[in-house]
Amino acid sequence: MSNSSSFQKILLDQLPIPNRLITSYATLGLNEVEVMVIIHLIRSFQENKYFPTPQEVADRMTITEKECANILRKLIQKGYLAMKQQENEQQQLSEIYSLNPLLEKLYTETPVKEEEQTADGTIF
Amino acid sequence: MSNSSSFQKILLDQLPIPNRLITSYATLGLNEVEVMVIIHLIRSFQENKYFPTPQEVADRMTITEKECANILRKLIQKGYLAMKQQENEQQQLSEIYSLNPLLEKLYTETPVKEEEQTADGTIF
Amino acid sequence: MSNSSSFQKILLDQLPIPNRLITSYATLGLNEVEVMVIIHLIRSFQENKYFPTPQEVADRMTITEKECANILRKLIQKGYLAMKQQENEQQQLSEIYSLNPLLEKLYTETPVKEEEQTADGTIF
Amino acid sequence: MSNSSSFQKILLDQLPIPNRLITSYATLGLNEVEVMVIIHLIRSFQENKYFPTPQEVADRMTITEKECANILRKLIQKGYLAMKQQENEQQQLSEIYSLNPLLEKLYTETPVKEEEQTADGTIF
Repeated sequence: MSNSSSFQKILLDQLPIPNRLITSYATLGLNEVEVMVIIHLIRSFQENKYFPTPQEVADRMTITEKECANILRKLIQKGYLAMKQQENEQQQLSEIYSLNPLLEKLYTETPVKEEEQTADGTIF
Repeated sequence: MSNSSSFQKILLDQLPIPNRLITSYATLGLNEVEVMVIIHLIRSFQENKYFPTPQEVADRMTITEKECANILRKLIQKGYLAMKQQENEQQQLSEIYSLNPLLEKLYTETPVKEEEQTADGTIF
Repeated sequence: MSNSSSFQKILLDQLPIPNRLITSYATLGLNEVEVMVIIHLIRSFQENKYFPTPQEVADRMTITEKECANILRKLIQKGYLAMKQQENEQQQLSEIYSLNPLLEKLYTETPVKEEEQTADGTIF
Repeated sequence: MSNSSSFQKILLDQLPIPNRLITSYATLGLNEVEVMVIIHLIRSFQENKYFPTPQEVADRMTITEKECANILRKLIQKGYLAMKQQENEQQQLSEIYSLNPLLEKLYTETPVKEEEQTADGTIF
């Protein structure tokens, strides 16, 4: 019953979060609760649930379903979260969320953080 | 300048967060802002900074230095965050934070979430 | 159909591998094919398959089932891989593999790599 | 000196590897040693070394520098690894490797693995 039996559990229980989301959300106009909604979405996606209800997201949070719904709406309005239609094998359409707009902003636009630059004032 | 040149950036920019932290923090009595402080600590540790100041943590957040200091204090009081003394090569002592108490709670104690159980209502 | 629609796919498709396994396997007496068997096991575990057959592991590799079985046996003999009995909810016993012995060697024993040490000559 | 002091070490020591690389390399015509060279490159990139020498890569492997150089050449010829020129702040050019061609193949082309498809025999 040694603790080391937990090593594998830790290894297998990682959720990958974009570093730049953590370093840049304040610059993107997001607060901590809104970022946590995004992290809960990433977690849901990893379990192949691409359209969790506000209730399902709020269940693990300290906010109400209504507050969660408002944040999801705000994320869509700000252009960080998208709703898409997806067709399954039975040609049925269903809605899914996508965080690609956020990832695109984080990784292809002019960097929001100066982090990786060596600001020396000589860049023209 | 294709987007695919960003693929590698995304791959290399992941911060590993314990899944159980995300699913269990509410049960552990933590709120979203407090979890985000923990995530900022993990990020700092990954950059080999094991004792960031409240100001350094708050710099990337939407809270003040004072609010951040209060949260760090609360995390220590709740037994999730530890402060330890570490000796470097020059036999100099310095303080470092450690999240091992939190990880121990998450991965070795009776699970705080029912997640891996088969909830059948018969548990007493 | 922009490439950026792949960003989320990359984010969600990461397999966490212990860095020290990659830096230390040669020192541990393992070669590249043996490490890849370990990586395939980690991948299998992440899909909640804790006892893949040699055939299942070899299916994604360029080695035969027999070579794979030999490597699994060698990993057990070397004390890196364990076989354990696990009881499920129906009190049925089944075999599972565990990589905890390897992780214990990598993370609790005297480091196999000098990487994080500051060799000061006083260790005898 | 409990083992649980290793929990944080494990959490902070993860190397993210694309799952699809592990499931698809055989289909891509790569063997285990060649994939391990790629994994060593990813590790090197994470340490901000974007142009390791064959010797540096081979140092942690069980192959010779020459074998490693041959594999790097093969990866470039197969179109999985690219060499690019990068300009630093002092307008100096240097070579860097990029795994974007491989990631592009893994994540934007027709999937090499049937994994996410529902093979129903009707795809002609």
